[in-house]
Amino acid sequence: MRQSRHFGLTLKDDPRDARTAAHRLLLRAGYVRQIAPGVHAHMPFMRRVLDRIAGLVAAELDANSWEQLRLPNLRPEDLLGYPGPPDGGNFVLKDRRGNLLGLGGGGEAVLAHIAKKEIRSHKDLPRRIFQVGIRFSDEARTRRGMVDEREFLLAEAFSLDAGEEGLKASHRAANAAFQAVLKCLELDYRCAEAELGSGGECTQHAFVAVAESGDEALVACDACGYSALSRVGQSRLETFPQDAEIKPMEAVCGPGLVGVGPLAEFIGIPVWKTTKTLLFAADEGIVAVMVRGDCDVDEDKVKAFLGCRELALADPRVIMELTGAEVGYAGGVGLPAGVTVLADHFTRERVNFECGANRTDYHNINVNWGRDLPLPTFGDFKTARAGDLCARCDQGRLREMRGIAVGGLVRLRTSAAATVGLTFQGASGGPQPVHMGAFRLNLSRLSAAVVEQHHDESGIRWPVPAAPFHVHLVALNLEDAAVRAAAEETYRRLLEEKVEVLFDDRDARAGEKFSDSDLIGIPVRLTISKRTFREGRLELKLRASSSSESVTVEKALKTIHAACG
Amino acid sequence: MRQSRHFGLTLKDDPRDARTAAHRLLLRAGYVRQIAPGVHAHMPFMRRVLDRIAGLVAAELDANSWEQLRLPNLRPEDLLGYPGPPDGGNFVLKDRRGNLLGLGGGGEAVLAHIAKKEIRSHKDLPRRIFQVGIRFSDEARTRRGMVDEREFLLAEAFSLDAGEEGLKASHRAANAAFQAVLKCLELDYRCAEAELGSGGECTQHAFVAVAESGDEALVACDACGYSALSRVGQSRLETFPQDAEIKPMEAVCGPGLVGVGPLAEFIGIPVWKTTKTLLFAADEGIVAVMVRGDCDVDEDKVKAFLGCRELALADPRVIMELTGAEVGYAGGVGLPAGVTVLADHFTRERVNFECGANRTDYHNINVNWGRDLPLPTFGDFKTARAGDLCARCDQGRLREMRGIAVGGLVRLRTSAAATVGLTFQGASGGPQPVHMGAFRLNLSRLSAAVVEQHHDESGIRWPVPAAPFHVHLVALNLEDAAVRAAAEETYRRLLEEKVEVLFDDRDARAGEKFSDSDLIGIPVRLTISKRTFREGRLELKLRASSSSESVTVEKALKTIHAACG
Repeated sequence: MRQSRHFGLTLKDDPRDARTAAHRLLLRAGYVRQIAPGVHAHMPFMRRVLDRIAGLVAAELDANSWEQLRLPNLRPEDLLGYPGPPDGGNFVLKDRRGNLLGLGGGGEAVLAHIAKKEIRSHKDLPRRIFQVGIRFSDEARTRRGMVDEREFLLAEAFSLDAGEEGLKASHRAANAAFQAVLKCLELDYRCAEAELGSGGECTQHAFVAVAESGDEALVACDACGYSALSRVGQSRLETFPQDAEIKPMEAVCGPGLVGVGPLAEFIGIPVWKTTKTLLFAADEGIVAVMVRGDCDVDEDKVKAFLGCRELALADPRVIMELTGAEVGYAGGVGLPAGVTVLADHFTRERVNFECGANRTDYHNINVNWGRDLPLPTFGDFKTARAGDLCARCDQGRLREMRGIAVGGLVRLRTSAAATVGLTFQGASGGPQPVHMGAFRLNLSRLSAAVVEQHHDESGIRWPVPAAPFHVHLVALNLEDAAVRAAAEETYRRLLEEKVEVLFDDRDARAGEKFSDSDLIGIPVRLTISKRTFREGRLELKLRASSSSESVTVEKALKTIHAACG
Repeated sequence: MRQSRHFGLTLKDDPRDARTAAHRLLLRAGYVRQIAPGVHAHMPFMRRVLDRIAGLVAAELDANSWEQLRLPNLRPEDLLGYPGPPDGGNFVLKDRRGNLLGLGGGGEAVLAHIAKKEIRSHKDLPRRIFQVGIRFSDEARTRRGMVDEREFLLAEAFSLDAGEEGLKASHRAANAAFQAVLKCLELDYRCAEAELGSGGECTQHAFVAVAESGDEALVACDACGYSALSRVGQSRLETFPQDAEIKPMEAVCGPGLVGVGPLAEFIGIPVWKTTKTLLFAADEGIVAVMVRGDCDVDEDKVKAFLGCRELALADPRVIMELTGAEVGYAGGVGLPAGVTVLADHFTRERVNFECGANRTDYHNINVNWGRDLPLPTFGDFKTARAGDLCARCDQGRLREMRGIAVGGLVRLRTSAAATVGLTFQGASGGPQPVHMGAFRLNLSRLSAAVVEQHHDESGIRWPVPAAPFHVHLVALNLEDAAVRAAAEETYRRLLEEKVEVLFDDRDARAGEKFSDSDLIGIPVRLTISKRTFREGRLELKLRASSSSESVTVEKALKTIHAACG
C-alpha cells in the first residue's frame, strides 16, 4: 500500500479524551476514528490488524475441525429475553411493521434455536461451530476506545455435546485454540477463574490481558499459575497453633476502638483471633457474615452462596434493633434466631477467639464454636488478597493485578438448551438435553490489549502476527529522480516477494516520516535515501530495537522472511 | 471438512414458503436457516460461499489500490436523516442513555463524516476505499430468502476525488473491478442505466442478474449492449411518412370505443396517429401527458422530469371538471390554462394526428401542433418496451427481461459531500466540495442470483469460484474397514494437496449420499466404494456433466487442479 493514498492521517497531538496508551496511540496513528460513543470506524490499518487476528482464530479452530458459520445479529422477540454475555446489553428496535427485534447478546440463543432442527439424535452430536463477526452490545461505559465498543469484532465458538464428558473435551479444545492465539500475539494474560459452580468447580474462565489500565481485578499465584477474578478468587490464610485449653468466655469493655489492630492490641491477642461480623440485608432477611479479623467479607461470594439478587449492609437502625448495639459491636453470640449466620472457613479452627458482644463498647473473648454460639454455615466468604497463600498449591502467595477481559470460556451445560428446549434422542431412553459450551474472544479488546502491552513513548510496537504490515518502506529524498526510481523498484521487489509492505512515498520531511513510522509501529523499517542509494543499500531497523544496520535488498529480504515468516 | 460433523442437515422436502429456485435449494441443501423474516443464519456452506465472493471482490479492488476499512453500522442521530441506497430503510433504536442511533443506510454518510478530518487539501485526494461486511436495512419485502435480507453482506466501495474527471476514473475502476467479479462468477447480468441526470447523462447504474424470478424489469438491446431499468429505459419508435398537406381539424363522434386499436380502425388511421392523453394530479396541480397511441406513459419519467414527490392519475370527477368529458376523451386541445402539458418526443413530428376532444364520445382528427394547440413541453415520457428500436444504436430492437438487482454504481458528485460539508483546499482558491462515488455489490443477493442461474432439478451447480468446496469426496461401503481406510487416506491426500474438500464419511446409503451431493452442488465429485477400491481407482464426476469416469488418485488431482486452479 502506498502511504500517499492511505486514508487515515496521523495526529500530532494526543487526543484529549484518550485515557489509556492504546486509545491514545490508536487514535494518533490513524487506526480508529470515533463516530459515536463506543462506535468506531476501523480505519484501514485497524481493519488489517483485526483481520489478521480473526485469521489466527479461524486457523486455530479450523485446524481442529470447528466449522465456521455466520449467525445474524438481529433476533426475533422470542429470543430477546435470553441472557447474553456478562456486562452486555441487548439493543431493542422496532421494524417498519412494528415488530420488536433484538440486536446483540450472545449467539448461543440463536444457535440453540437453530440446533433444535439440526440435532435429532446422538448421531448428530458432537458439533463444534464458530463465527467471527461484528456484534453489538449496549455497553454502559464507552470511554476507553476499542475496549468499550458497542459495535465490536467478536470470535464466538460453540460446542454441542451429548454429555458432560464431551463438553469437557470441547472446552479443552476451545481453550487450547484460544490460548494459542493469545500466545501468538505475545500477550501477557491470565486464564482466570470467573465463576464457580455449586460444587466449587470452575464453570467459567476469563482471559484477562495484564494491564494497569484495565478494570478487571485479579489475584494470581506465580508458583502454580492459579488466577481468578478477585470476586471469585480463593486463598488460604496462615494458621496458627491454638490454645490447648478452652477458656471461659468473657466480655471486655473497649470503648472507641476502631479497627481490628487497636482492638487486638488492647485485648492483647493476635489480630487473627479477632472476628469481623457484618450484618447484611439480603432478599429474604438479615444475614450475619463472620470472617477472621485480618480479612474482608467478599459480598460477591456471599451473594453467590445465597443465590440472592440484592445484598447490602444493614441499616444502623436495623443493627441496633437486632443486636441492641451500635455498629461495630456485632458478634455471633446471642443473635436473634431469624438471622442466618455464615462464617468463613478460616474462622473455624480457632480456639478462644474474639467477637463483638452485641453490646456497645463490648467484645467477647475466649469465644468457642458450639459452646458459646451454634455452629454456623461455613464457606468461602472472604476476599482473596495479595499476600494470602494460594489455595491451589503449597508454595505460592497471591498477588493482585489488573487487566482487560478479552474473552472467556463458559460451560453452559444444559441451561441454554433447556431454555429453548434443545434435546436429542439418546441411544436409549427418551430425549436428553444437549450440553452447550460458549467460548469467546473479543477481538476489538484484544487488539487494544496488545497495544497496551506493546508500545513505547514513540508509538506502537506490533508483534508480527498482529501487525497491519510487516515492512514499512520509508523513502527519503524523493525529489531526486534516481532515488525515487530505486525506491519504486524496491517496493515492486517487496510486493513480488509477497511481503506485506507499506510504502511511504509521500512528499514529507524525514523527521515526519520517521515519527509517523514509529507511531504506526510496523515491525521492520527499511529506509531508502540518497545516502543509502549511493551505497546500493537500505537501512534496516526493527521497531523493537534502537539500532539499525545497512543491508542489501537481498539481506533485507532474508531478515524479513526470517522475522515475519 | 467431514460431513459427519457438519452442522446443517439437508431437507427431503421442498420448504413450503420458498418461491424461487435459489430460496428453495439453499434451504434444502442446508445453506441458510431463517431466524426471523429477512434474517438468516448463514450456515457453514453459505459462509464459505459468501467469504469466497467477498474474497474475489477484495482481491479485485485491492489489486487496484482500493484500501479496505470497516465502517460501523451504528450511527449517531446527526447522520440519521441521510439517504441510504434506494429501497433501503434505516432501523432506528435508542441506547440505554436514551440517545437515538441509526442502523443501516449507505456508508457514504459515515465515510463523508470521517473524511472531513482526513481530507484537508488536494494532496489528500484522490482516496479509494472499500469495505465488505454485514449491513442492515429495514426492507419492506422479506419473502425471497437471500434476496431480501434485512441483515446482509455488502461490499461497498467509495471514491473521493477533487473533480468530475477523477470521479469518472474512479467510477471506471470500480466498474471494471465489480464486472470482473460478476464475470468470474459466470453470472448472466446487465449493467443497466438506473437513473438519468438532468442532462440526460446516466448517473447511476444497476447490476442486474438475469432471472425470471427477479422483480427488476429491464429493457435491453442485444445489438449494442444497451440496457436500462424499464422505468428509465429509452427507445426510439418507428416513424412514418407524414401527410404533405395540413388538413382542417374536425371532431368525430365515436361512442363506446375502448382502446386505440378500435379507435384507429373506426377513424381509418394508423394507430401511431392516435394520441393518449393522461391527466395526473402532481404535487402542484394537474399535468396532462401526451404519448403516441401505440405507447404508454412512464409515470417514473414524468415524476423525475417534474421533480415531484406524488403523481397519481386524476380523479374522474376532476377530469370531468377540467375537460367537461368522461374519462377516455381527454386531449390537448382546449385544456384550461392552469394545466401543464407534457408530450413525448415521438408525438412531435406527426402531421394531422388524432387526440381526444375533451367531449364525451368525441375525438379530434387532423390535429396539428401550433395551429390547434400550443407547443407543449416535449420530453421522454413513454415507457420503453420490447420491440421498440434501441435509442443508442441503429440496428437493435429492445427486449424486456427480468432480473435481481445485485449492486450498482452511483456518481454522487458533490451531493454527499455538500450534506456534511466535506470540502478540500484546492491548489488555488477557496474550499471546494469533494466529488464522491459509491459502488456496491450485495453479496447475499449475488449468491442467490448465482444459484438462480446455476441449478438443475437435482440441486445447485456452483461455478468453481463461488463453490463452498471444490471436491465432494463421497465414500460408500464404509462398513468395510479396507474401504474406510482407503477413503481416509484419499481425504488426507486431498487435504495435503490443499484441495478444498468435503468428505462424506457418514453412515448413510449410497442413494442418500448422491442426492445430497447433487443438492449441495460442489463442482467435482469423487466417489470411493468397494468396487472402485478393488480397482485401485475413484469415480470422478463433474456436477455439470452427466457422465463419470474411473480415474486414479493422481489423475483425479490433475483434473481437480485444472478445473479449480
